[in-house]
Amino acid sequence: MNSIKLHAPATIANVSCGFDILGFCLDKPYDEIEIKKISDQKVVINSIKSEFSNIPLFANQNTGGIPALKIIKDYKLDFGFEINIKKGIPLCGGLGSSAATAAGVAFGINKLLNNKLSNEEVVKYALEGEKISSKTPHADNIGPCINGGLVIIKSTNPLELINIKTGEYFFSVLHPNVKISTKMARELLPKNIKLENAVKQWGNIASLVYGFSENNIDLIKSSMNDYIVEPVRSKLIPYYDEIKETALNHGAIGCSISGSGPSIFAITNSYEDSKKILSKMKNILEKKSINFHGYCSKINNKGIEVL
Amino acid sequence: MNSIKLHAPATIANVSCGFDILGFCLDKPYDEIEIKKISDQKVVINSIKSEFSNIPLFANQNTGGIPALKIIKDYKLDFGFEINIKKGIPLCGGLGSSAATAAGVAFGINKLLNNKLSNEEVVKYALEGEKISSKTPHADNIGPCINGGLVIIKSTNPLELINIKTGEYFFSVLHPNVKISTKMARELLPKNIKLENAVKQWGNIASLVYGFSENNIDLIKSSMNDYIVEPVRSKLIPYYDEIKETALNHGAIGCSISGSGPSIFAITNSYEDSKKILSKMKNILEKKSINFHGYCSKINNKGIEVL
Repeated sequence: MNSIKLHAPATIANVSCGFDILGFCLDKPYDEIEIKKISDQKVVINSIKSEFSNIPLFANQNTGGIPALKIIKDYKLDFGFEINIKKGIPLCGGLGSSAATAAGVAFGINKLLNNKLSNEEVVKYALEGEKISSKTPHADNIGPCINGGLVIIKSTNPLELINIKTGEYFFSVLHPNVKISTKMARELLPKNIKLENAVKQWGNIASLVYGFSENNIDLIKSSMNDYIVEPVRSKLIPYYDEIKETALNHGAIGCSISGSGPSIFAITNSYEDSKKILSKMKNILEKKSINFHGYCSKINNKGIEVL
Repeated sequence: MNSIKLHAPATIANVSCGFDILGFCLDKPYDEIEIKKISDQKVVINSIKSEFSNIPLFANQNTGGIPALKIIKDYKLDFGFEINIKKGIPLCGGLGSSAATAAGVAFGINKLLNNKLSNEEVVKYALEGEKISSKTPHADNIGPCINGGLVIIKSTNPLELINIKTGEYFFSVLHPNVKISTKMARELLPKNIKLENAVKQWGNIASLVYGFSENNIDLIKSSMNDYIVEPVRSKLIPYYDEIKETALNHGAIGCSISGSGPSIFAITNSYEDSKKILSKMKNILEKKSINFHGYCSKINNKGIEVL
């Protein structure tokens, strides 16, 4: 096999109280990535025109280029790769855009190398790519992007990803077109937290995971409370409280910040509700003349898909 | 009904990384409690001779007396109760001894009142009794004592207890005969913790709960790591590290401090292993001439049992 095409999907990290340890894979949006072997030992990145084409084209600055370069070096390959990326996931949106490129490239190259790398190594190379957007990269986007479904990032070192069986859920995702860098969002976080708040948070995270695994909607609903991160980061997102309140008032099971924001997600168990809620969420930004993107998506249980 | 007899079982709170939010109900040891209506509006506490009879006999100082007095007052009862307690659970051992008495009395009186109180009210009255042994009482012993099984204490206010379905597991419980008060054990805890440690902890707690619900022994094993409480409290327990290492070396799935200690529990999925491990754990204290009690128990899925 000399070339491969794939979809690398968007992801929702954190999932309310699950800061840094929980992530969902979405059906859309997604990046389209094509990787071709080339005879030179180098990495060429091409950006295919899309709504979000403003990615770095130097391989050593691109989240997909970095894993490609490292794999060539570590495995002493005598060839290189041309990588064509059509971005479908907004950049710096909190939807795992950089993770999708990093994971998509590491995953795709592994296929071109006849699965020479373990799943763990694929994640590790993808994490190398993520380093460019976050000093302390976590696998809460990469894990769900590769594995699909709902994933606990139990540990990053050593890497332990736990997939949770869930019922069918739908996401209304609103991406307000304002820039929040992952670095900035992370710098806002407290270094220390009160033990009593940590206890509340782990009561909720345990209940949330059990709620999803048992398809207990009341439990999911009452567990989606974040005492640590949402209170700080929500201030960066225009009209966050109003959008969240609207989603919950229109029947969302829960609503929170996707990744480090500014995207906001609401979760439902019906596609119809998901469309209705997204429409209500959009209305708020429309009235304030803030640009946005909106997506309705089910859970993507496959993860990265080879086309 | 004018009198009732019941067993109020011991419990394991915290369960490693589940500080203040997770508890198991044990089959043994247990307290035996008899409650009789008496014509006077008062509460009489009698202690039946046992290995652990040194409980306060003034009703307003006894963890069972306090709920009884409050129920009489709140429900304007024109009668009172004689309560006979035979302690089977070591006091101040970290096995929910005070919770068993408090929960047993609240539960039993509710039966004598023809279930006038909701389950939530029973827990609340029991918590009032617990206040005498801990300034900030948690339901991590009372919840499992009443409900049985494995319980997440999702929230204390409002009270939310979530029972987790589990497979069959066995506990080797070693109670070294040294005194650690709940108050003292709590005062040792840090008020603030590093966010990065909190994240590790909630990754483990989410995985531990999912591991029990899916009967995934490898996941339970790798999740029973406590970064917050065990490092501090284990120093109070003689030969803790040696006992834990011994339990793990002999096949325990996990080993940690029960409640606020000094009891230590190891978990297995076979009764035979549980007996073998307890014997190895006991050997260590025997060699050091430290007195102890030891119990092998399965999970008690019934909780308090009316005889």
